[in-house]
Amino acid sequence: MADYKAPVRDMSFVVNEVLKFDALRETLGYEDATADTIDAVFEEAGKLASEVVHPLNQIGDAEGAKLNDGVVTLPEGFKDAFDQYKEAGWASLHAADEFGGMGMPHLVAVLVDEMFSAANHSWYMYASLTHGAVSAIQTWGTDEQKAKYLPKMATCEWTGTMNLTEPHAGTDLGMLKTRAEPNGDGSYAITGTKIFISCGEHEMSENIVHLVLAKLPDAPEGTKGISMFIVPKFLVNDDGSLGERNSLKCGSLEHKMGIKASATCVMNYEGATGYLIGAEHGGLKAMFTMMNAARLGVGVEGLAKAALAYQYATSYAKERIQGRALTGPQDPDKPADNILVHPDVRKMLLTIRSFVEGGRLLAGYTAMMLDVRHKHPDEESRTRAEDIVSLLTPVIKAFFTDEGFRGANLGMQCYGGHGYIVEWGAEQIARDARISMMYEGTNGVQAMDLVGRKLFWHGGRAVKAYFQEMSETLAAAAGRDDLKDVAEQVQAAFGSLQTATQYLAEQGRSAPNNLGSGATDYLRLFAVTAVGTMWLKAAMTAKDALDAGSAEQDFYAAKPVLARFFAEQYVSEHSSLLARVQTGADTIMALDAAAF
Amino acid sequence: MADYKAPVRDMSFVVNEVLKFDALRETLGYEDATADTIDAVFEEAGKLASEVVHPLNQIGDAEGAKLNDGVVTLPEGFKDAFDQYKEAGWASLHAADEFGGMGMPHLVAVLVDEMFSAANHSWYMYASLTHGAVSAIQTWGTDEQKAKYLPKMATCEWTGTMNLTEPHAGTDLGMLKTRAEPNGDGSYAITGTKIFISCGEHEMSENIVHLVLAKLPDAPEGTKGISMFIVPKFLVNDDGSLGERNSLKCGSLEHKMGIKASATCVMNYEGATGYLIGAEHGGLKAMFTMMNAARLGVGVEGLAKAALAYQYATSYAKERIQGRALTGPQDPDKPADNILVHPDVRKMLLTIRSFVEGGRLLAGYTAMMLDVRHKHPDEESRTRAEDIVSLLTPVIKAFFTDEGFRGANLGMQCYGGHGYIVEWGAEQIARDARISMMYEGTNGVQAMDLVGRKLFWHGGRAVKAYFQEMSETLAAAAGRDDLKDVAEQVQAAFGSLQTATQYLAEQGRSAPNNLGSGATDYLRLFAVTAVGTMWLKAAMTAKDALDAGSAEQDFYAAKPVLARFFAEQYVSEHSSLLARVQTGADTIMALDAAAF
Repeated sequence: MADYKAPVRDMSFVVNEVLKFDALRETLGYEDATADTIDAVFEEAGKLASEVVHPLNQIGDAEGAKLNDGVVTLPEGFKDAFDQYKEAGWASLHAADEFGGMGMPHLVAVLVDEMFSAANHSWYMYASLTHGAVSAIQTWGTDEQKAKYLPKMATCEWTGTMNLTEPHAGTDLGMLKTRAEPNGDGSYAITGTKIFISCGEHEMSENIVHLVLAKLPDAPEGTKGISMFIVPKFLVNDDGSLGERNSLKCGSLEHKMGIKASATCVMNYEGATGYLIGAEHGGLKAMFTMMNAARLGVGVEGLAKAALAYQYATSYAKERIQGRALTGPQDPDKPADNILVHPDVRKMLLTIRSFVEGGRLLAGYTAMMLDVRHKHPDEESRTRAEDIVSLLTPVIKAFFTDEGFRGANLGMQCYGGHGYIVEWGAEQIARDARISMMYEGTNGVQAMDLVGRKLFWHGGRAVKAYFQEMSETLAAAAGRDDLKDVAEQVQAAFGSLQTATQYLAEQGRSAPNNLGSGATDYLRLFAVTAVGTMWLKAAMTAKDALDAGSAEQDFYAAKPVLARFFAEQYVSEHSSLLARVQTGADTIMALDAAAF
Repeated sequence: MADYKAPVRDMSFVVNEVLKFDALRETLGYEDATADTIDAVFEEAGKLASEVVHPLNQIGDAEGAKLNDGVVTLPEGFKDAFDQYKEAGWASLHAADEFGGMGMPHLVAVLVDEMFSAANHSWYMYASLTHGAVSAIQTWGTDEQKAKYLPKMATCEWTGTMNLTEPHAGTDLGMLKTRAEPNGDGSYAITGTKIFISCGEHEMSENIVHLVLAKLPDAPEGTKGISMFIVPKFLVNDDGSLGERNSLKCGSLEHKMGIKASATCVMNYEGATGYLIGAEHGGLKAMFTMMNAARLGVGVEGLAKAALAYQYATSYAKERIQGRALTGPQDPDKPADNILVHPDVRKMLLTIRSFVEGGRLLAGYTAMMLDVRHKHPDEESRTRAEDIVSLLTPVIKAFFTDEGFRGANLGMQCYGGHGYIVEWGAEQIARDARISMMYEGTNGVQAMDLVGRKLFWHGGRAVKAYFQEMSETLAAAAGRDDLKDVAEQVQAAFGSLQTATQYLAEQGRSAPNNLGSGATDYLRLFAVTAVGTMWLKAAMTAKDALDAGSAEQDFYAAKPVLARFFAEQYVSEHSSLLARVQTGADTIMALDAAAF
């Protein structure tokens, strides 16, 4: 098994150089988040991820989570690493001062997410799901609820879960059956079965705070009748101490393709005590707060998996000697050249890397927009940022997880047959990466969220704002001789994207199946154009550093090459993607269900 | 877990209607292979695959192959099913009369391969590797060797293996270290370690005949110094009875991502008795006989995995109700519509199916060309067929296994989160399918075989012959009003393919890295055009049947829809693929190895 080294230099490049966070720092009230502090965070969090958390990745896969008499046990080392993570303050990196947090921007938190997710997907889920639950309580909880739960949850002393899915209700939550009956004292008795509850039971934390969707007795039909409840594993006394065990338990664990050390629980609620959070029947809205935070995090899981796959495959490719370069021996003293001499191997590696670095720019940008949304003093700026985050969230969730899985598979492919062998660790990355395309809304659901909701909300306000921003970057790059041709390629894709957007707007409500049939291709077209544009930004930054005579010539010189590669290999898909979007649904809908 | 139903009607359509095998039957000397007989073969083999072999698929994954004291045991039921397979004569379906076979054409055998491979990949490898070893002995063995081994191997009474790979020598066989020392009696003492030996040890058959690559004492360096040896597990006496145990053993089994019931062995040869087959130092050529047969078979594994994934996902999609159609409720009496109403779900299913049915046409066509190569009385026809088989083998191996894995993943995706859960069986298909992209030469190696060898051999004779054949089909389809627009789409791709071929020819030896960097995209461009052309053939056949008033209206009506879908969703990639081929290797080769 290879090592994982947190990409701290690249992360600093994203935050401090390309996105220039420092220029916004004081406006957003993040006085402490100076470039030096951020670099130190990356350095220290990276050490824990690389040296403590990653070495537990393979054992987590081999041993998995185990259930005995309602108690879930995890592989040795998991709890100790989690304790170190909490004690170092990484769990509360983003949380506000008042909850004991470091008060760092989302921008920094999302890149630290990437590190831990790359190091050990299963292990990190115990923390990352908690972050989603914290957002929901922060947004929808009463002051009392916030005071009771957030200080403990922000630090992962208590962890959190999302309880949405039931056996017959996944994407279609309107059909859920879990009931909430008033107890008469302001609390509710929750009864029902939830499935696919990640980290639903374990002993990594003192308490587990479940956020559960259920229906009140008078609930209207469908999604308008869903409410959300806080249902803690141990009830919490008024003084904050833990009280009695609630009437809920983990009935079984799922057997899964990957993320085997993440306990995926069937949760049985048997009149468990729960507390309404948010409005009666307002659960769907509250759930989306949690879900949107989670979707960005899931996208980053994809990025993280590709980043890990790149490191593994590169270290193998450098060591593995096999055959000779097409242009003649490169290392004549050895019996063969290393496989990095082969264009096809390089192409696989650069495909992964150009996605990882370009995707990291887009994830960072989106996280910075989250910071603007929450902290910018100017309302117009906040609204614009909110629009852009809403628009980009499904794009990131779907494209990053598709490419994360693809990257993991390209990484495996570099190993040849060895990639299929468990001991090398490459195939685990692919199995772990596969889930992110399905949970928190399948990637098909993300595409429908994009074309059915986000694109045309408020008369297309979000997409107009974002396209305007892309235009500005494209214009800046087109004006530079050294990047002109790359900018032209991205500009062509931007043209396709605009044409496709116009096409979808024309289908609108009149031919909704044409939105459905083109959705996934449209999302990909959007993503390659957006990432291609971010690459132009990065290439300009790097060229400026080179021109200024930076001592890190090799570091900066690679960036315009990767920008060009991304344009050649990803952005070039735009013509085919546009053609497929414009094809419409006629052929897809032509066959009767019986013909399938 | 869902069922597998062998697609016998579709296979009959391929053989008897689209490819019109009957018109060639007598010329090729397959008098007995009438349409009725072929249909009966499909029906009976299909029953065994569906009812006996497929039910062992999931238990094979759960239990795997186990090694104890040099003995490999397989899950219960495996041997019994193998005995039924042998007794029914399916093992020797294609073998000639003289070796106790049924003497059926390759065309039929390859589709029966698909059935068993779909039903249970791991289980079927015990037979399919034997077929490759039989080809090698048939082509390169002495009469005595043929008489000694083939009758037993053709029926799988004895099974066969290929022993190529060593820890440090995979793609680059020139570096192998296994030695063959003359014993002085015409036999050799074989010493060395081979890895990744599929079905290297087991008790499914009385004897295992290993074909082993090794070097003679006076061997020249590199691939020119490789010889091939027959090294049986039990030595064979002159009367054909089994003699003493040879000095070889399975040292360990690999832990793999999938195909867990296929024993992947480390084989230790400790002065084992072997017999030279083919010329001294002529092993590579002999190996390619085995390898080319195997590569076609591996391509069919990809097809098979997609076919199985389609059946699983379709049965799930029909049962799963969730959400409503975009155009309004389709099944208002139920709380939700089934997920087949969603364009994106249909698109995933039709992507799998249009590949499976179109790919099956191309596999069938190639297998029929194998029959022509072996049995046509006219030498020119045989040479042309040999050219086309050589050309299409890497295309089928790589494209089919890429799409097999993609299809398996699209199938999983239709299940939503349930796709990740072992019990449903969908994720096993993906794990099993993954190996076919890597073994028998990675798909990158296939692409180099295509652009570096097959394309320009004999002045491009093969590609000229095949392009001529495609042109004829395109012209026929363009002349039909009812298929004109689909034909235009495939014609456009054919234009891109010709441009790309010309580009690669110009790079030739002057810029070999441009061959390397464009190889995988070129192979895919070739494949989507070839399969698109086969779909036009099938659509014409189906339209003719509809026009003739066939009673099977629904069966035939689906074919032109699938042809159109394949053109819209696969063939449409051609413009982007061409752009990427023409990009060349400059960017890919720009970074130093240290920059990775």
